[in-house]
Formats: sequence, structure tokens, C-alpha cells
Amino acid sequence: MMSKADVTEMIMEKKRAGGTTWAEIAAMAGLGEVFVTSACLGMNSLPREAASKIATGLGLPQEAAVVLAEFPKKTFEQAVPTDPCIYRFYEIVGVYGETLKELIQEKGGDGIMSAIDFDMSVEKVPNANGDRIEVRMSGKFLPYKSW
Amino acid sequence: MMSKADVTEMIMEKKRAGGTTWAEIAAMAGLGEVFVTSACLGMNSLPREAASKIATGLGLPQEAAVVLAEFPKKTFEQAVPTDPCIYRFYEIVGVYGETLKELIQEKGGDGIMSAIDFDMSVEKVPNANGDRIEVRMSGKFLPYKSW
Amino acid sequence: MMSKADVTEMIMEKKRAGGTTWAEIAAMAGLGEVFVTSACLGMNSLPREAASKIATGLGLPQEAAVVLAEFPKKTFEQAVPTDPCIYRFYEIVGVYGETLKELIQEKGGDGIMSAIDFDMSVEKVPNANGDRIEVRMSGKFLPYKSW
Amino acid sequence: MMSKADVTEMIMEKKRAGGTTWAEIAAMAGLGEVFVTSACLGMNSLPREAASKIATGLGLPQEAAVVLAEFPKKTFEQAVPTDPCIYRFYEIVGVYGETLKELIQEKGGDGIMSAIDFDMSVEKVPNANGDRIEVRMSGKFLPYKSW
Amino acid sequence: MMSKADVTEMIMEKKRAGGTTWAEIAAMAGLGEVFVTSACLGMNSLPREAASKIATGLGLPQEAAVVLAEFPKKTFEQAVPTDPCIYRFYEIVGVYGETLKELIQEKGGDGIMSAIDFDMSVEKVPNANGDRIEVRMSGKFLPYKSW
Amino acid sequence: MMSKADVTEMIMEKKRAGGTTWAEIAAMAGLGEVFVTSACLGMNSLPREAASKIATGLGLPQEAAVVLAEFPKKTFEQAVPTDPCIYRFYEIVGVYGETLKELIQEKGGDGIMSAIDFDMSVEKVPNANGDRIEVRMSGKFLPYKSW
Amino acid sequence: MMSKADVTEMIMEKKRAGGTTWAEIAAMAGLGEVFVTSACLGMNSLPREAASKIATGLGLPQEAAVVLAEFPKKTFEQAVPTDPCIYRFYEIVGVYGETLKELIQEKGGDGIMSAIDFDMSVEKVPNANGDRIEVRMSGKFLPYKSW
Amino acid sequence: MMSKADVTEMIMEKKRAGGTTWAEIAAMAGLGEVFVTSACLGMNSLPREAASKIATGLGLPQEAAVVLAEFPKKTFEQAVPTDPCIYRFYEIVGVYGETLKELIQEKGGDGIMSAIDFDMSVEKVPNANGDRIEVRMSGKFLPYKSW
Amino acid sequence: MMSKADVTEMIMEKKRAGGTTWAEIAAMAGLGEVFVTSACLGMNSLPREAASKIATGLGLPQEAAVVLAEFPKKTFEQAVPTDPCIYRFYEIVGVYGETLKELIQEKGGDGIMSAIDFDMSVEKVPNANGDRIEVRMSGKFLPYKSW
Amino acid sequence: MMSKADVTEMIMEKKRAGGTTWAEIAAMAGLGEVFVTSACLGMNSLPREAASKIATGLGLPQEAAVVLAEFPKKTFEQAVPTDPCIYRFYEIVGVYGETLKELIQEKGGDGIMSAIDFDMSVEKVPNANGDRIEVRMSGKFLPYKSW
Repeated sequence: MMSKADVTEMIMEKKRAGGTTWAEIAAMAGLGEVFVTSACLGMNSLPREAASKIATGLGLPQEAAVVLAEFPKKTFEQAVPTDPCIYRFYEIVGVYGETLKELIQEKGGDGIMSAIDFDMSVEKVPNANGDRIEVRMSGKFLPYKSW
Repeated sequence: MMSKADVTEMIMEKKRAGGTTWAEIAAMAGLGEVFVTSACLGMNSLPREAASKIATGLGLPQEAAVVLAEFPKKTFEQAVPTDPCIYRFYEIVGVYGETLKELIQEKGGDGIMSAIDFDMSVEKVPNANGDRIEVRMSGKFLPYKSW
Repeated sequence: MMSKADVTEMIMEKKRAGGTTWAEIAAMAGLGEVFVTSACLGMNSLPREAASKIATGLGLPQEAAVVLAEFPKKTFEQAVPTDPCIYRFYEIVGVYGETLKELIQEKGGDGIMSAIDFDMSVEKVPNANGDRIEVRMSGKFLPYKSW
Repeated sequence: MMSKADVTEMIMEKKRAGGTTWAEIAAMAGLGEVFVTSACLGMNSLPREAASKIATGLGLPQEAAVVLAEFPKKTFEQAVPTDPCIYRFYEIVGVYGETLKELIQEKGGDGIMSAIDFDMSVEKVPNANGDRIEVRMSGKFLPYKSW
Repeated sequence: MMSKADVTEMIMEKKRAGGTTWAEIAAMAGLGEVFVTSACLGMNSLPREAASKIATGLGLPQEAAVVLAEFPKKTFEQAVPTDPCIYRFYEIVGVYGETLKELIQEKGGDGIMSAIDFDMSVEKVPNANGDRIEVRMSGKFLPYKSW
Repeated sequence: MMSKADVTEMIMEKKRAGGTTWAEIAAMAGLGEVFVTSACLGMNSLPREAASKIATGLGLPQEAAVVLAEFPKKTFEQAVPTDPCIYRFYEIVGVYGETLKELIQEKGGDGIMSAIDFDMSVEKVPNANGDRIEVRMSGKFLPYKSW
Repeated sequence: MMSKADVTEMIMEKKRAGGTTWAEIAAMAGLGEVFVTSACLGMNSLPREAASKIATGLGLPQEAAVVLAEFPKKTFEQAVPTDPCIYRFYEIVGVYGETLKELIQEKGGDGIMSAIDFDMSVEKVPNANGDRIEVRMSGKFLPYKSW
Repeated sequence: MMSKADVTEMIMEKKRAGGTTWAEIAAMAGLGEVFVTSACLGMNSLPREAASKIATGLGLPQEAAVVLAEFPKKTFEQAVPTDPCIYRFYEIVGVYGETLKELIQEKGGDGIMSAIDFDMSVEKVPNANGDRIEVRMSGKFLPYKSW
Repeated sequence: MMSKADVTEMIMEKKRAGGTTWAEIAAMAGLGEVFVTSACLGMNSLPREAASKIATGLGLPQEAAVVLAEFPKKTFEQAVPTDPCIYRFYEIVGVYGETLKELIQEKGGDGIMSAIDFDMSVEKVPNANGDRIEVRMSGKFLPYKSW
Repeated sequence: MMSKADVTEMIMEKKRAGGTTWAEIAAMAGLGEVFVTSACLGMNSLPREAASKIATGLGLPQEAAVVLAEFPKKTFEQAVPTDPCIYRFYEIVGVYGETLKELIQEKGGDGIMSAIDFDMSVEKVPNANGDRIEVRMSGKFLPYKSW
């Protein structure tokens, strides 16, 4: 039975063979880069139509589109990620986690930023002192209510 | 010997007593909200002058300014944070970590976003479907080089 | 500086001395038992007025009401709880976690049940084969969206 | 030797191919959705007859019914689940665990809610402010006795 | 506020000073050795009357009896116990756990032995090849039911 | 090379196919149920002759008898077992571990109950209030000596 | 209430003040160095008389002798020790653990070396290529038996 | 590519088939039992000539000798070993670790016993009260120096 | 799809067969030993041209060069490494970590040594008292800035 | 009883009050910066004379010199350090650990670099592209020998 991991590997193989970028795959789907990449890596479900466009665009079998549209089990394997590029984000959450909580709750009251009703973008911004990566996250504020 | 934890508790006590906000404390220092809050929580070092302004503004002893300017040992206690507001950011790193790596490296080559040459802002943005929290991170792109 | 743990201990002391129940404390606040108990244990923030009613009702100092209304840092100490009464709920999540996911997503599409926009009740229900505990949870369905 | 994991994969394959829902599979068995889903995921044992009905209904080999009726080894792999839909229930146990204990024991004395003599249902309830998921758990109260 | 740990320390101090045994303390309470010892160590709640008899018998303040009758939070600190006497029981569960499961379920069907509706005794039995420790556990069989 | 896990799977397959019980397999070997079951699950070594009788009785190849008589590496995979039937025994060790230590050492002096010079039985005992599981453990008392 | 940790600290203080060695303390007790040191560090119980001799010899209060004779709870804090001198022994167990098992069982059959009926010595042996530490362990062989 | 694990399995197969002992294999190599066993289990590298003798003696392909002479990656899988025979050594390090450190450093100054410039033997010694296992370790004393 | 692990295994096979050293492979690439070795082990990406030279030099298929040039996911498996040669470096970081931090920050202000803009060399240096290994690390100093 | 942690705090207090640097303290002792800093942080033992010079130089009580000369128990608290400055070194060991092993063993045969017969220096080196931190480690090569 074809799994999300199988489809991810198929896509990686097509990318290696054809030099296709995530930006091009996102364009096939007509959706954002972060969302499409995360779905191709098995961490989100694509709308059925967008999945079909990617399957067609990359030359994958039709079952791959079905799989891309299925709801994923989001499993991340290690409590502390080891890859340096990912670890830096973990470190940011560790160093700034309480700060984020203080400021979100100062601005909105007791509550959280949703990680479900959520979107994100990543850009590289040219800079004379060295280019910068800019990550923008936007999540709905969900207040705790008394009941 | 006065520790960073002691100073954090003094500041929290002043905030409770006077209803002072992090925004007001950041304004005393003339620096950004995220940076000043993180320094007051013991996770960054303030320039000596900014530290003095906060000590004066909040009515803390002068040693507190010395402590706020010292270089912190950044310790975060649990591999997986439990507070829901902080956990959501951990989850975002878990779910989108490989996506961030793919896109950063597609845009910049093999490398990472620095968590040291780094700044961040947090805003609450009004929205008809429910207000949103917007977090913007900016870090220098650091490429791996061969040697 | 009075902490949430200090206030919890004060309340426990009053309960021991006076035999007061959580049901009576919830009635003082005019809110539900689960919510009030969790706030008195330091895991939720009470509206300022409800906090004052509890402080008055139990004969606590006025600062305790301030503390009960502050936003908590929700910290639970062990990945696997040891108390048998609490462990059984952890076991239920372990045994039925994938089942809950399958059924929630079959009924609502890819998404989750919110643990923030959430309420819960606990009742003991008489039963000829032995009384039963009934726990009812209700959380807003939050769908994942493509973006 | 056919394992419970093998049977789960067979059922998932049938569901993908035929678009069959858990509700329909539960109807084949004449038992509740939660119980049947958990048994098909390898976390409970079905009565032999119910297992046969599902095997027949889905077109599985007869050995699958034998396997579905065997007593499972209930193994859940991670101390802290990562899938957001499942994690929220873990978070609820963390945040409300002591509250559940206080209220169950206030109502019934020292004891626990059984996770064995136990049943559960999951429903999606329409709501003008956004549909809600309702989970109802019922477990026998088991008192500690002195001996 | 007097805690269960405080009362345990008081009892240990009385035992050291007076050479009192657990067997004598159990006799004061009119209950079994294992149960009374576990309650004095903070892992079970004594009936109020038995608690009073122990407080009187050992010369403890009356609040100690109240505390002994309160419902404990059962916390055991390490996933793997280190004391050799306790570790051996952990090892027995590790080595024979699946065996116990196989035999309990062969004899009773899918289900478990309750650790709540449960009692235990410990005896030293003279033996020519070296005395033996005999531990007898008895717990209610709780079957899983379909629903 | 045939492993203990291979032999366990062969035995489970025979049990499924023939409905053979552990009690019957123990009778083939002329040894106790707990010991034989644990050896068939790879956690003890059978005397060569007993192993042959089981191999013959179940129709296994002769190499299986060799493997059943080899000394096992006893590996149990998780610090905290998840299967509810096994977990209850882990909980008993956690809740009553210090109690067992206190009573064993009160009766025998500083020392332990051996888990090697050890035997155990499991029975289901009919009871009007619900049948009970009785587990009896017997291990040699090993005293610490000064040297 | 005086604890074993308290007595260990008293002994360390006497050692620092008087330059007393473990060898001298063992001589006071008339027992071996390893055993006496481990008992003074809280990991074994001394015979009452030997404990008195040490208390007298070092000028400790008489209660210290009572405490040294009590049965310890042997707790070692980290799964993997960090001190280099202790870690090397942990590494030896990791690297040679299976070897020790193979050879013990080749020589004695299925069984173990007891860590209870056990003694050990440590010596420094002069050597032209650099002095060596020699550790000798002796433990009773405990065979597994079938039952 | 033939791995050390492959060679270990080959050797175990030859041992099972031929009843060859580790003592005999060590004799083939002309080296000590502990060292040769550990090398055959993949935890040390054999001199090329000794490896050839073992390969010839056991009838293994010549590549096995190359593999036995390669430098191993020494990986031991669990922080706390579970096999009772190996665990007892882990327990000895836990219970006596600080004692070993105190005595080594009393005899030699601040420093450690090397686990690299190290050898070990294991013998079974007949004894009227039950045979004993004797383990002798010898490692070079390495002093810390100031610099 | 050929993975970095596949390519590492191919290289190890060529090294075993041909006795090729890392120094020779680094010379093929015209880059440093540490960098090339780490890239061949899957922990860095080689420039495409250097990768081709290695593939040609070792007689690997051309896809291997593509894989060697891809950006790695740097995964290291255990929180505490077990191989003695690697563990010693982990121990150095544990023992000297705070020292490194104190001295780096005394010399440069609050900041870190980059592990990305980084290079390292390893040499064996002859020495009359025993040869020494010298490791030289050089990383860009990255200061924290206030913002 | 004055502990190494007490002395470290005294030194840190003197450094804060007097602006003394580690370089100045090392000069008092006449030893290297890394070694002296690590000893002041409780991770190494100073020669008695060097300890006295530091105590005198900083105005500490004479007992502090005794404590600085005692042999430390080297305890580092977290498997994965969180401070970014220290974590980068942990990451280097993770990313380059196998590389270090390959190269050390290619140059010296099966063996390790000692972390005991070891010294280290840290310098900041000016550089037009941003100053660099240079860390130089030197440890004796210890070969494994067959026995």
C-alpha cells in the first residue's frame, strides 16, 4: 500500500532527476511554497485537485495524488532535532518561548497562537551585511475562556 | 549574590504591583519588545545603559542593572515544553522543520538561518475572522563552505 | 512574591481545615467545577471578580485573588504520569489516540479538537453494577486549511 | 504469520480503495464506532463473530477475522505523542490531570476511573460559532479499600 | 501545611528512636502489614479511625492522623528504580511481563489484573537451602468488553 | 540462523492454528506454566530434554529445541511498559516498591529477594464479587554481608 | 532527623580537617576499604559495632553510628554517570557486558554473578610503564533453574 | 558489504553447530578469552594474523578475517541494560562508583583508571558455599595534570 | 533512490577492497581531510566538481557524485555517544563547556563560536612521552546584538 | 562544609565586584587560562600552591584554597546542553564525531585521544571577515592493544 513516505521519495527522485524546485511544484498546485512543501514531505494534506496537478506535473502515478490528499499522521522523531538548520529553530523556541508567551498574552490576554489555523512564509532577503532569511508566521489568537 | 532569576522575580513583582507592561519596559530601554522581554527573563544581556534605564524606571537597586548586563547561561529545562502557548511553537518546528530546511536551502544553498545574528517581533493583528498573532523572524543566512 | 503554588497551598489548607469541597468553591465563583478546580491548582486563570469571590469566601488575602487571575505557566512534570488515577487517562490517550484521530477526521476532515476553546465536566453516575465516572469533553473543531 | 499490523494495513487499503468509512465498518460489526475502530487499529479484540462480519464485509481472508479476535499487545510508541490531533488529548491530561483526580476523588473517595471497564464516544456537534467535537468517556469507579 | 512526606519522616523518627516495627504499627491499626506500611510511606490512605490509632500509638500530633487519611498523589520518581531490592521486582516485571499477560489472558480472556481492587502480602519462609521471601498478590480480574 | 524470536513466532503460529494452550505446552515439558511460557517467549532457557518434548509435541524442527535450550539475552524494550495488563504490575512495583523493601528488610535484615533463584505461579480464583488473579512469587533471601 | 547524607557530609568534613584517609577509617572498623567506604558514602549498612568504632574514631555523635547501621536506599542519580573516573567503569560494562555474559555462562551455565553476595578490592600496582589500578570483583554464581 | 554483525552471526552459527567454546576460539587466536570474545562480538579489533587463525579454525570466508581486524564502532544500545547478567555489573557501577573514585584517587591522586590501556579476566572459582565468579580488571592509572 | 548512506557504504567498500585512505580521497577532491571525510560520511555537501573527482577516483557510478553534492540532513542518533573515541569529545564538551563559554565571552563579549562558518583539522604529533592527537577548531565569532 | 559550588560563587562575586578577568586569575596561579577557569568552575583540581595564590589574590578565606585543591566530582547536568555557546560544541561532536574517529584511527590505529592527559587553549584571532575563535585541543593517543 503506497504510503506518504513512498510519495515523498518519488517526489525527491523527480526533483533530483529533473532539477525541479519546490517553488515550481508549488506553482503547479497554485498554493504557497511552505504549505505545498510540507504536504509533499507528508506533514499536511493537499486538496484533491492540487494533488492531481502535482502528480500530473511530476509524472507520478494517480495513486500518489490520492495519498497526497490523505490526512497525515504527523510524526517527528526526536525530542531535540539534530540537523543544525532545524535545531536553530528549536533553540529559538527554547530561548524565546517564555518571551513569546509573555508578549502574546500581554497583547491578547490568556491564550495562544494557533498552530492549526496557521500559515507561514520563508524568504531570503538581500542585505549588504549578508543576506537574511525572513520567516513570517501568522496564527489565529485563541483565548482561554472561563466556563 | 544576586542572580538573573532574582532580577526576573523583582521585575515580575514590580509589574504585578504597578501594572507595568513589557511594552512600557521596552520603551524605558529604547529597544524592541522581544529583545527587552527576553533579557528581563534572563535569556539575553542588555547593554549597560539600557539596563540602568530599566532599573531606574522600575525602582530596582543598581546591582540589578549590572546583572541585566551580564551574559546569561541560557538554560531551558524540558526537551518538550508543556505550556500550551509555548508548545505550539515547538509543534510548528516539529511539523515544519524539514520544510523550513528545504526552502532555506533551496533559496540559499547548503546553510542555516542564524539564531544569534537574529531578531524577532510579535504583533496582534485585528481580523474579522478572529485576531491573529504575527511573528516575524529575521536571521542572517550562514552558508556552509568547503575547506 | 506570592506564586500560584503558594495560593494552591493556601486553598488546600483551608479545605483541610474547613472540609470545604471543590463544588462549594466553584459555587462561590459561579463557574464550573472543572474550570475552578484547575484554576485553583494553578492551571487556568480566573476572571478577576470570580477570584475575589473565592478569596473572600475562603478568607484568603487579597493578593491571592490577583494571583488567581494571572495567566499561568502550565507545567506538568513527567512525560508519563505515575499517579494511578491520572495514569489511566494517559493510557486512554495512548490506547485510543489514533482512534480519536481517525474518527474526528472522518467526521470533520483534516483537523483537530481544540484544547483551548474547550470545556469539560466530570460526574459520578450511580449504576447497579458499580457507579461510573463520566467525563465529557467539548472542544471546537479546528480544520487545517490549505494556503 | 499474519499480524494485527498486517490486518490494519489490509483494512486501510480497503478503505482507500472503496471509500468505506469507520461508521460503515462499525455497522457491519453491530458495535460502536470507537470500539470497532480501535480494534481495527490493533488496540482491542473483537468478538469472533463481529470479526467475521467485518472480514466478510470488506472482503478480507478468513485468517484476518481470527487475528482481529486475538488479544492485542497494546503498544504506543512515544511518551509524548507528536501528531497535533492526538497531542491535544495528551495536553488535556497534563493540564487537567490533577483536576480530574481531585474531582473524581471528591465525588467517590480514594479511587480511580477504570480504563478497562470503559467506553467512549466521539461526535461532531454543529454550532453557530464553529462545530464542536464532543468526547464522552465512561469508566467504572474503582475504590481503593483498606486490607 | 503538614504533608504526607512530613508524616512519613515523623514515623521513621519514632521507629528509629523506639525500635518499633512495621508489624507493630500494623497491629495498632488492625490492618495488614503491606497496606499499613504503604500508607505510612504516603502511597495509600488509611481509614480515619486506623490513622488515629497509629497517631496515638506512636505519639504523633492529631493532624498527622488527618494527613494519613487523605488521598495521596502517588508519585514514583524514576522510570527504572535503582535500589537493588526494588529493582529486582522491576526486573521480574520486565522478564515475566509478557508471560503474566499470556497466562492471565489464557485463563480469563482479554483483560487485566486490577492494581486497585488489590491486596498483597510478604512473608519470610524458612528453608534449608536458604530462607525465601514469598510475595502473594491478589487482584480482581477485569475483562475488556465490546461496546 | 534461527533465533529465539523465530521460535516464539513458530510457537504462536502453532497455537493459533491448533488452539493449543500454554497449559498444554507446559504439560508436554513436564514443567510449570510460568517457566515454560517465559522460555517459549525467549526469556528463559529450557533443559534440552524439555525443549525436545515441546518441539516434538508442536511439530517444530529439531533446531527449535536447540534454540529453546540456549541461554537468552533478556531484553525488555521500554522503561515504562505500555500494555495495560503489564503496566499494572509496573505500577504495583512503583506504588509498593518501598513497602516491599521495608518489609523484606524488617523480616530478614539488609538484603533482597533474588530474581534468579526464583519461581512464580499465576492462578485465576473464582470469587463471588468477581474472579481474582493470584500471583505468588518466591525468591531466595540474599543478605548483604560486611567484608 | 539525621540522614545518611548528613553522616556522609560529617565524615567528609572530618577527612578534610584531619587529613584522614579511607584506609584509616576502614582500619578503625576492622573491615575492608571498599565496603567501609561504600557504607560511609551511604551505599551499604555497617554492623552496629563497626559503626560505633568509626563514630568514636572520628569524633561523631552517637546517632551517626545508628544511621551508619541502617539499611540504605541505594539511589544513583543518572542513567549515564558523567564523572570521568566513574564513566570509564560504565563504559567497560557497555563494551564488555555481552562478553562477560558469554564467558560467565560458558563457564557456569545460564545464570549470573551476584551483586549482593559480592565483594571487591581496589589496589594501585606499581608498573614501569605507568602504575596500574587493579579491581578484583568476586560474586557468587547464581544459576537459573527450571521449575 | 560484510559487517561486524554479519561476522558475529557467522561465529555464533559455527558455535551452535559445532559446540565450539569461546575458550577454544581464544586458543585458536593465541590471545585471552575476554579480548577474543569481545572482538568476536564486534567490540574490539583483532590483529590481522589472529583474525586469520580464527577464520581458518572456524571455516569462515577470508573476508571475515578482514572484518575482524577492522576498528569497531562500539555501540551499546540502552542507557540501562536489561539482561540480568549484564545489569548486575551496571548496578555495581551505580552502587560502588563513588567508592571506586574515592579509593582510586586516594591511592593515586586526581585521575582515572584507563578503559583503553586495560585488560580483564573472568574465572569461575569453586567454593563450598557455592561457586563464585571472579572478575579482575587492570587499567593504567592516568593522572590529571595542571597545565 | 540512492541515499547518502548508500554512497557512504560504497566508499567504505572501496576503502576496504583497495586500502585507500581518507587522506588519499581528500587529495582526489583537492580539499581538507576533515571536510572530505565528513562529506563522505554524509554530514556535509561537496562541491559538485569535487564530488565528481571522488566518484571517478574511486570508481563509483556518476549518481554517487550527485548524492555527495546534495545537502545532508545531519542526524546523530544518540544524546550520549557510546563509542569511546567519540565519547571523549563529548566528555570534553561536558567538562569544559562552561569554561569555553566563559573564555570566549571574556574575549569577545556575549556571543558564540559559529559551528557553520567553521573549519577543523586533526593531526598526530610525535612526542617522546607518547604521540599526541591535536585538534584545531576555528569558527567565526558571532556576537549577540541588542535590537 | 564549604563546597566547590560555594567557592565558584565566591569567585564569581569577586569578579563582578572587581571586574577581574579569568586571564588575571590564571596569571595569579601561573597556569593556563582554560585549566584555571575549569578548576574555578569546579571541574578540575588545582595544585595546592596555585590554589593559595588565587585565594590570596582574590581575598578568599584559606578554606577556599583547600577546596580548590580537592578532587572534583565532574557532573554535567543535561545530555544535550541548551546554552547556544556550549551547544555549538556539542553539535560539532555530533556532526564530526565519526569523522574525528576515522581520522584519528587512520593516523594512529585503533585507539582514542585521551581526555585526561589533555590540554586545550582558546584564542580570539582578528580576521578581516570577522574575528574567529580558535580552539586547540591536544590529548595523548591511547592505542587499544590485544591481550
